[in-house]
Amino acid sequence: MKEKRITLAYGSGGRLTHQLIKDIFVKHLDNEILSQMNDSAVFALNGHLAFTTDSYVVSPIFFPGGDIGKLAVNGTVNDLAMVGAEPLYISLSIIIEEGLLFEELERIVLSIKEAAEESGVRVVTGDTKVVENGKADKIFINTSGIGIVPDGIDIRGDKAKPEEVIIINGTVGDHGIAILSARKDLSFSADIKSDTAPLNRLVKKMIEAVPEISVLRDPTRGGLATTLNEIAQASNVGIEVEESEIPIRDSVKNACELLGIDPLYIANEGKLVAVVSKDKADLLLKVMRSSPYGEKAKIIGRITREHPGKVVLITRLGAKRLLDMLSGDPLPRIC
Amino acid sequence: MKEKRITLAYGSGGRLTHQLIKDIFVKHLDNEILSQMNDSAVFALNGHLAFTTDSYVVSPIFFPGGDIGKLAVNGTVNDLAMVGAEPLYISLSIIIEEGLLFEELERIVLSIKEAAEESGVRVVTGDTKVVENGKADKIFINTSGIGIVPDGIDIRGDKAKPEEVIIINGTVGDHGIAILSARKDLSFSADIKSDTAPLNRLVKKMIEAVPEISVLRDPTRGGLATTLNEIAQASNVGIEVEESEIPIRDSVKNACELLGIDPLYIANEGKLVAVVSKDKADLLLKVMRSSPYGEKAKIIGRITREHPGKVVLITRLGAKRLLDMLSGDPLPRIC
Repeated sequence: MKEKRITLAYGSGGRLTHQLIKDIFVKHLDNEILSQMNDSAVFALNGHLAFTTDSYVVSPIFFPGGDIGKLAVNGTVNDLAMVGAEPLYISLSIIIEEGLLFEELERIVLSIKEAAEESGVRVVTGDTKVVENGKADKIFINTSGIGIVPDGIDIRGDKAKPEEVIIINGTVGDHGIAILSARKDLSFSADIKSDTAPLNRLVKKMIEAVPEISVLRDPTRGGLATTLNEIAQASNVGIEVEESEIPIRDSVKNACELLGIDPLYIANEGKLVAVVSKDKADLLLKVMRSSPYGEKAKIIGRITREHPGKVVLITRLGAKRLLDMLSGDPLPRIC
Repeated sequence: MKEKRITLAYGSGGRLTHQLIKDIFVKHLDNEILSQMNDSAVFALNGHLAFTTDSYVVSPIFFPGGDIGKLAVNGTVNDLAMVGAEPLYISLSIIIEEGLLFEELERIVLSIKEAAEESGVRVVTGDTKVVENGKADKIFINTSGIGIVPDGIDIRGDKAKPEEVIIINGTVGDHGIAILSARKDLSFSADIKSDTAPLNRLVKKMIEAVPEISVLRDPTRGGLATTLNEIAQASNVGIEVEESEIPIRDSVKNACELLGIDPLYIANEGKLVAVVSKDKADLLLKVMRSSPYGEKAKIIGRITREHPGKVVLITRLGAKRLLDMLSGDPLPRIC
């Protein structure tokens, strides 16, 4: 069993596919909706639904702080949370490169199970494909998610208004640097773990305390700088952030200097940016800091009337420089 | 433009990713939900929801009768239809191998647009990743879908009952043979097109006329034989099918003989199997035959009390042989 590998026949839709589903997926992820085993899962739901999808192609598939399975659950849970939704159901579609060890697949599925339990979502439908050796890279995972947006909540990227402040829930750059540290061809040793985490319970507390939050967004691919640019453009406002206020671990800072990359452009997987009115900011910070994934929450900037659509960084020396969206791709396959 | 290719930077999440989304995806697929451009799409929905997912890895990506884009929409639409649901929304998540031509990507997206229009679904959320050359195979597409199951409809694989009959809507084996004919390494020339088609409008008419349909299932990977086995096992009933009644095109039959494969194990992408009581069968057939994708509908077999969990084929010579689930994988990457 230890050395057993996935072959093309496991993707045929026949006997071996059924066996794989039973022995690995249903074994670990079962619930009364998944076990319907029809072409679609069916469940009752009413209200404003949130629906999102992401494919995960991270390399390597195991890294400090997590793996592709944990990432695939948390990433989609977070995309639902960023519109204020309570995540309920996810789908799980896996493309396997022939030759993957059963042991590796099972480890990933156990990680999916654990992440689903932490965030409270259930895997209710799935799909497995297998492609030839050399036609994928070990495993790619798609998760799509469905959540319910509570009544009265309307959080969108285009609602940032002048005078509002920008809050982040913790340090930036951890995920990207953890992935780089795990890549064999990079020899720096960084004691840095991915920040991959489900943010839905944090967001739930935030919107219960301050339902008027204007914008929530998770700075994943493209990093904090790109996310702030998206908000500035969608809301047609200017943004100013204080370099000295953006929390970055020393180890991440050092690794970034070594690699010549800017931590503001590195993917995070357990971070969110919130835009909220000045007078609600203290309450929101207090609530965030009482939650496990928000302990280091702080204000890093503000929305301005000036330079709509653009983000300006106020450097430690007090100079202002334009913080553009990521161009090029310093870190492929980070998520 | 003709020779422009996708590079890794288009998957960075930065400027080029935004440009790709705007110039290809939003340009062709836009609607008021997709254009929200938040981390999740939000829409109101009430009732019994159907939710499904599938990743498409078909090779080659263009083939007689369709391409991977058309397949990705129709396949997910059909999975929703097989529980009686009206398909409403789909997600679109694409993994691109570096080097894919923009022209090819746009051709696929136009095909997605066309297929979505035919079936009446809207693409409301999406994701794009790019992996290095040699780490995928041109393009993989995941679509997940949401539909609404009409009140009173309860179609499941475990509801087949003795004395009921089995109906199919047309010829089997077309899709699989079309894919094989398109593979460069196979030189037989077959004038056969994939049957890829959205079955939701056909199903809608079927359940309006006969809401008591017990089972619907589309015989995709694993073919008709595997699907019948799934029904026999889920419902714990026996199934008997008449070889002489199963519609197969002569060209498909000839290609299968040449290749030494059994058409009953070949994937279909526009076919469905319905299980219904004897006394409703004529009405159902009449309704199916009046619909574009059901013209050739016919009864091919029946549910029995004997040999529960097993499928028996009655051959042209009157002999009975066990028709097992597909084992092995005669046709990898057929969908």
